[in-house]
Amino acid sequence: MRPVAVVGIGKTAFGAFADRDLRSLAVEAGQKCMADANVSPSKVEAFYLGNFAGPSFVGQNHLAPYIAGAMGITGVPCTRFEAACASSGSAFFHAVSAVGAGLYDVVLVGGVEKMTSQPTPKVTEILAGAGDMLGEGRAGATFPALFAMIARRHMYQYGTTREQMAAVAVKNHANGAKNPQAHMRKVITIEQALAGKPIAEPLTVFDCSLISDGAAAVLIAPLERAAEFTNKAAKILGIAQTSDQVALDQKDDITTFRAVQSAGEKAYKMAGVSPNDIQFAEVHDCFTIAEIIATEDLGFVKKGEGGPYAQQGCTALNGPRPVNTSGGLKAKGHPVGATGVGQICDVVVQIRGDAGERQIPRHSIGLAQNLGGSGATAVVTILGAA
Amino acid sequence: MRPVAVVGIGKTAFGAFADRDLRSLAVEAGQKCMADANVSPSKVEAFYLGNFAGPSFVGQNHLAPYIAGAMGITGVPCTRFEAACASSGSAFFHAVSAVGAGLYDVVLVGGVEKMTSQPTPKVTEILAGAGDMLGEGRAGATFPALFAMIARRHMYQYGTTREQMAAVAVKNHANGAKNPQAHMRKVITIEQALAGKPIAEPLTVFDCSLISDGAAAVLIAPLERAAEFTNKAAKILGIAQTSDQVALDQKDDITTFRAVQSAGEKAYKMAGVSPNDIQFAEVHDCFTIAEIIATEDLGFVKKGEGGPYAQQGCTALNGPRPVNTSGGLKAKGHPVGATGVGQICDVVVQIRGDAGERQIPRHSIGLAQNLGGSGATAVVTILGAA
Repeated sequence: MRPVAVVGIGKTAFGAFADRDLRSLAVEAGQKCMADANVSPSKVEAFYLGNFAGPSFVGQNHLAPYIAGAMGITGVPCTRFEAACASSGSAFFHAVSAVGAGLYDVVLVGGVEKMTSQPTPKVTEILAGAGDMLGEGRAGATFPALFAMIARRHMYQYGTTREQMAAVAVKNHANGAKNPQAHMRKVITIEQALAGKPIAEPLTVFDCSLISDGAAAVLIAPLERAAEFTNKAAKILGIAQTSDQVALDQKDDITTFRAVQSAGEKAYKMAGVSPNDIQFAEVHDCFTIAEIIATEDLGFVKKGEGGPYAQQGCTALNGPRPVNTSGGLKAKGHPVGATGVGQICDVVVQIRGDAGERQIPRHSIGLAQNLGGSGATAVVTILGAA
Repeated sequence: MRPVAVVGIGKTAFGAFADRDLRSLAVEAGQKCMADANVSPSKVEAFYLGNFAGPSFVGQNHLAPYIAGAMGITGVPCTRFEAACASSGSAFFHAVSAVGAGLYDVVLVGGVEKMTSQPTPKVTEILAGAGDMLGEGRAGATFPALFAMIARRHMYQYGTTREQMAAVAVKNHANGAKNPQAHMRKVITIEQALAGKPIAEPLTVFDCSLISDGAAAVLIAPLERAAEFTNKAAKILGIAQTSDQVALDQKDDITTFRAVQSAGEKAYKMAGVSPNDIQFAEVHDCFTIAEIIATEDLGFVKKGEGGPYAQQGCTALNGPRPVNTSGGLKAKGHPVGATGVGQICDVVVQIRGDAGERQIPRHSIGLAQNLGGSGATAVVTILGAA
């Protein structure tokens, strides 16, 4: 595979935007991205779109040509990818694979979700479709319930505490407060996090990510052509997508995500680096326990040590390995289909040194980890300064 | 790109199966396909799934790992592709591109839809999501209405008649009657077709494809490895996916599908053949007018001559260029997400000489054309005996 680079990025703010429709969000992100890379729509050779549930949230399907057409992109392959909360991570993986294999040179990858036009119980029901509806769904186990079970088991098996999970929330809220594009820019204390409204014991509202609207886009190209588009290219060092069973009861261990482990191993191998080389990461904190597990599954710490690692401040903005400097899904927001590509944008912003108030000092190699459902899809990407 | 072959095929019957869920259909097709290629799930390096609207029809999303896991396929990329009625055509295009580019060797491609568990008005509403819901959908223009407008304009511009459209229905019903896996196995007369219940003037119920449940799968591999799996491989000579605007009012001419034209041109070029070389085809007859337009856009006849071409029997089973020997979407059935891969299976069955009562004499090079919505996505594949 030839080396591939991210040569343009573009995001909308994440939030609840009553006056915006899905397409306008996706088009805004795509156009910002093309402007960032100084590229016209006619140069785009393929459009890869991640979207989880546009048809269920807003009734619109066939989204890739629908959005591409509005940006003036026609006559090329425009395709929607769905892999639950890893939808745009998956779109990005396939796009990078295609450019790496020489199928295309200039590819636009987008992700979008418009969630807030539905009432929360309906949103929860739609999200449950990322799990096993014939088993988990029929039993009423929505995602907060599934991750509550995961958290309980992690607490039982490794001594993880509610305080450690709350520490993740406090950190991500602090980071989100510094991110102008974050959905929630509110600093919280550990006491507030612990006293949050219960959602599914032991998870409080502060352990759960947000229901958001938003879109993100990146432009990728062969590294050798990157200079045509930008002097701030980021190189894709390693990338992998893998899968696991959807239903929790089909997994041998619910305190670990096998797909994250295997995608991580493949991405590290492709990049020729080890977990220790990763300076910072955007991980999929759909729930605070998921961030703790991610730091373990990605090899940042040993199994069971993710809780103390977070609590000790190791993943804070000023810690040795900052995690979710964007605020994460917890505070930046989680417009499901936009999250994977949004994470890539957030890693690239750090690599470029453009993260403003939340810029970290060591930012030459970062990782993004995007999770689908309760772990049936994982995409891990390692990016570095080009 | 290295040559790629279809080395295994598997389909469920298409029909209305009240006792079958979506996953069991997809698993049946996948397992039949792997058995056909004598391959175990552990050899599958990636799973590409086409599905249009599982979440809307049955509430289940995240379908690729959900189905793959049930077949024992985990730890590899499992991805769902959505491109309206071209969803599995798109999955197939991306899979062939990936194998052709050397990313994988052994890839399973599936397509599935479970439609009949919803009442017909709800099905029509879900299908409308493949069009522009903010424009066409808001105006109440469901797909029969959109294709009725297309038919009207084609009649006005080229003198196409209701009798010519009815001839397509009669032919496809005759072919479907010979296909043991077809949803509708009922021979009809031209009088019956013309006297059908009106759906959207000038289209009667006999001009419209069926609402079906069903699944299809193919296994692909590099041509050089085909003999490991089968002595009946079919070679992919050319393939392309392209896109156009979704909304009819954004197109300069609604009597032609630009995406079909451009995908056809690209596929012919890749295969090094001309339309005249195509001996038979499976085309996307979601409505009879769509088959007429397909024969024009693919260059089988000049623009405007598709109606007479059908009426003269040129596309009949015993005609010079049989079209939809399977019965087409009209009689075989149209489980939306299964249709694209189903067409590939149907072309391969002819190439293998395994089509039984509907086997045609000249079957060494065939074409499949899969259409999304009212033409915003098109996938064209040309297959030949290996």
